[in-house]
Amino acid sequence: MYEIKKIGGGVCAPEGFYADGVSAGLKPDGAKDVAFVRADVPCETAAVFTTNKMTAAPIRHFRAKGAFKTNFILINAKNANAMTGQAGIDDIDEILSAVSEAHGGLVDPVMSSTGVIGVRLPKEKIIEAAKGFDLEKRDAVSAATAIMTTDTFYKSVATEVVLEGGKRFRIGAMAKGAGMINPAMATMLCFVTTDADADADTLQTILESVIPTTFNAASVDGDTSTNDTVIVLSNRKSGAFDETAFTEALHAMLLELAQMMVSDGEGATKLVTFDVTGAANDDDARTAAKALSNSLLMKTAIYGEDPNWGRVASTVGASGAQCDEATLTIAFDDVVVYERGNILFDAETEKRAATVMKREQFTIACDLGQGEGSFKAYGCDLGYEYVKINADYRT
Amino acid sequence: MYEIKKIGGGVCAPEGFYADGVSAGLKPDGAKDVAFVRADVPCETAAVFTTNKMTAAPIRHFRAKGAFKTNFILINAKNANAMTGQAGIDDIDEILSAVSEAHGGLVDPVMSSTGVIGVRLPKEKIIEAAKGFDLEKRDAVSAATAIMTTDTFYKSVATEVVLEGGKRFRIGAMAKGAGMINPAMATMLCFVTTDADADADTLQTILESVIPTTFNAASVDGDTSTNDTVIVLSNRKSGAFDETAFTEALHAMLLELAQMMVSDGEGATKLVTFDVTGAANDDDARTAAKALSNSLLMKTAIYGEDPNWGRVASTVGASGAQCDEATLTIAFDDVVVYERGNILFDAETEKRAATVMKREQFTIACDLGQGEGSFKAYGCDLGYEYVKINADYRT
Repeated sequence: MYEIKKIGGGVCAPEGFYADGVSAGLKPDGAKDVAFVRADVPCETAAVFTTNKMTAAPIRHFRAKGAFKTNFILINAKNANAMTGQAGIDDIDEILSAVSEAHGGLVDPVMSSTGVIGVRLPKEKIIEAAKGFDLEKRDAVSAATAIMTTDTFYKSVATEVVLEGGKRFRIGAMAKGAGMINPAMATMLCFVTTDADADADTLQTILESVIPTTFNAASVDGDTSTNDTVIVLSNRKSGAFDETAFTEALHAMLLELAQMMVSDGEGATKLVTFDVTGAANDDDARTAAKALSNSLLMKTAIYGEDPNWGRVASTVGASGAQCDEATLTIAFDDVVVYERGNILFDAETEKRAATVMKREQFTIACDLGQGEGSFKAYGCDLGYEYVKINADYRT
Repeated sequence: MYEIKKIGGGVCAPEGFYADGVSAGLKPDGAKDVAFVRADVPCETAAVFTTNKMTAAPIRHFRAKGAFKTNFILINAKNANAMTGQAGIDDIDEILSAVSEAHGGLVDPVMSSTGVIGVRLPKEKIIEAAKGFDLEKRDAVSAATAIMTTDTFYKSVATEVVLEGGKRFRIGAMAKGAGMINPAMATMLCFVTTDADADADTLQTILESVIPTTFNAASVDGDTSTNDTVIVLSNRKSGAFDETAFTEALHAMLLELAQMMVSDGEGATKLVTFDVTGAANDDDARTAAKALSNSLLMKTAIYGEDPNWGRVASTVGASGAQCDEATLTIAFDDVVVYERGNILFDAETEKRAATVMKREQFTIACDLGQGEGSFKAYGCDLGYEYVKINADYRT
């Protein structure tokens, strides 16, 4: 057996990791906008990236390396370095060369960016700021703050896993994204550090296994940004590892970060779990759950606290998932409003369902009555504030 | 050769067709909410319906008839008669029996509904109003007005086709839907009448050939309502027909109705054509064009009149269509902002692009540079008004 404990320290919680955030003048008013994550030794590296075909330069730069170890990630906000062609990749090389020269000891450094698409990086500002990094700083909060874009709060978590016999390892992570509501723009980035004794292949397998039910379950509109990135670094310092425990801990951490992103969805006031069960298979359940979390009609009904179960039925029906009105059941938390062909939506039930929708967090549950497939997706409402934020993002 | 002329009269323009709309008290303030379309003889009938699996009762009722001729369609707004099970179908039978009894002469009448999902039809009110129909009325405007839900204007068109030698036929049509912006709720309904001498199979083939580039090109969020319906009735009275001319005329009419719906999209202020060319094939072009018209980020950028071409690139990249930043070209009307890897978005170009976006109608053009495929999709912006309308639709 093992124990998983939440701890503080974010990406600096595992032994041998350093991080900080500073201002390079990319954001107004001297806000922090450039960060680093550094390890004391070159790390085993695992990563997953966007499936968007207009892949941003930092991702193409990372991928071109093939298998490699690194001890340094440089991250900037406000500029995605996407749609910038070869020049965007050359910019990264130039920046990382200058930073390596200034600091020494960086092994195969990489870069990660988020912000506006189609504008060249302000190289000089980033280089200038990065030259001033104190690489011994362990300020996970500053780093998590610097990578924010439209986020309203920083997102940082850490866990200690204690194995039977007392051996232990730690995992730290930070993420940015008010962007699961619109990942096409407000990119999600996530950086995970660990001193667990796991090699790159093992980390990659675990990472790919937890993404579908964490970050990918929270992506609201099916869009995928040019920059979406999750990178895991392991320095293996703890000498301890257990695959089951690591997977469970990482899944819980990434789910927490994903839910933070949805809660922080631009203008969002509610975090809703779309819990689809009884689907013909898990793929069908995912299809239906994500259709619900992406639906404009659901999102506006949630904003209006309107238990419009007809939209739930219609959205599931249009999703492509196998379903039938005679086998469908719909509930808002514990309030069943439609059950296998029977409309239970009398005035009393409507009142109870409306009360559920006033909560900051609740579940819309759909049992399709077709089989054993299930999936949980996470979404939020869409209100005036979302329109305000996105109608004029660039300026 | 042939000539296609726009004329007045809507669904009553072809010889032998009658229509009217009255109030059954389903809408507040005595607004018209129940309509009929009647033909003097049983008509050849073609139809296409929603692909939503939660198909509404009127569609299941229609389909159950197999091949049939009818001379009467009864239409109501405010209630979709969806998710109502067998009871919903029984309600239709009961209503149509009562109306047939009152009027006599109705042959295999059918019904079509739009409105809130999951509530039984107010049978008595509808029967009472329908009993009062004056079946000799030819008031296409009243009929087109009665079927409106959140529509802000009625949608009615008619065409006369003059064939070589002077033979002629007419086509009339009406539609409702502020709903291409959200077809999952504000159903689209369309009724087409014609005196062209075409049989049901021919009409069905033509109808299916024009839907993909008209109504389906305007569906904004990929959702499909429980009630979407297009029905064509032909009484063959003119004795004239030419398949090419009929197809061209019908395509133009349905495209005009589709564009009216987008213009009338809930809270919409702009009609935007997403013109994708140079795709690997037409399917890819459709995928990219519809992704653009459905994107929340595009819709809010359009509302904000922000020429955010990075969102165009990102949305196309995420759509699944084959594409590459090195071959992509993006233009707002005639203002090219990105051309095959080159960012042309200087201050002057940005100003010109922003000017285009202030127009009520404009085109966002994407040449993917991959092949010969093309598709045009039609969309609108999303602003505060959309949220207002949809946050509390039921009440």
